Amino acid sequence: MRLALNEARHAASIGEVPVGAVVQLADGRRFSAHNAPIASHDATAHAEIRAIRAASEACGNYRLTGATLAVTLEPCLMCCGAIIHARIASLIFGADDPKTGAVHSLYHTLADQRLNHQPAVTGGILAEASGQLLRDFFRGRRRHAPPSGATSHP
Amino acid sequence: MRLALNEARHAASIGEVPVGAVVQLADGRRFSAHNAPIASHDATAHAEIRAIRAASEACGNYRLTGATLAVTLEPCLMCCGAIIHARIASLIFGADDPKTGAVHSLYHTLADQRLNHQPAVTGGILAEASGQLLRDFFRGRRRHAPPSGATSHP
Repeated sequence: MRLALNEARHAASIGEVPVGAVVQLADGRRFSAHNAPIASHDATAHAEIRAIRAASEACGNYRLTGATLAVTLEPCLMCCGAIIHARIASLIFGADDPKTGAVHSLYHTLADQRLNHQPAVTGGILAEASGQLLRDFFRGRRRHAPPSGATSHP
Repeated sequence: MRLALNEARHAASIGEVPVGAVVQLADGRRFSAHNAPIASHDATAHAEIRAIRAASEACGNYRLTGATLAVTLEPCLMCCGAIIHARIASLIFGADDPKTGAVHSLYHTLADQRLNHQPAVTGGILAEASGQLLRDFFRGRRRHAPPSGATSHP
């Protein structure tokens, strides 16, 4: 999770909403990524998706059986869907996301028995540091951005 | 939608679950894609995500304001999340997906007023052809695949 937090700090330094993620495969290899929709012109480039894609490419399999995903913010609908499709075994996340979180804030997608995979979930890990990074980022953006600036987590 | 159906047929021809998608931008440009998680080693490579990525890259913006997405199958949680993040204006889809559909089968994510975008939605367009393609594909796979073969829409 500390590696994910470093990725989140890097995202903030380049003007992306500070969220970071790390996939650790069953064999111990790690793939980290930061949130990057603005720089990559890709609404799907959340940290979780980028880490999952990097790990899948490296191991030549779209299913990451036995892998753990650590992310600094509660994943959204899109990322929870990707976690299920990739068969991530365990999710560890930091701060809750009351606006778009799909683990337990708005939805409980990862515990939905109608879907064909339910990862183990642990929330609240380094939540204060993860949340503070987001609060500082949005406070700075409100101070400096024009009134028409993008809002919330792109 | 006919272009999306052609993409779905192509997916079937290469052993991917037959789903196809097309993004049409507000300026008329179109970006089509087929489902490709197996070939691309990427669980996120659903047709919708690939079409959204191609369109976003081409227009240099992660928000596809005014765009329409046509897809042969009701989008899943992941793809509905991406549709919201990309600010797709209108979604047109074919067959319902009772197992993973997140438009109206399992969830109603695109009508959720708590999220910051709600696209217009029209379902059931060329649904019979889209659904038949999927039924034929899975019937063929059950006939030929080993018992441990992958199941459902990867």
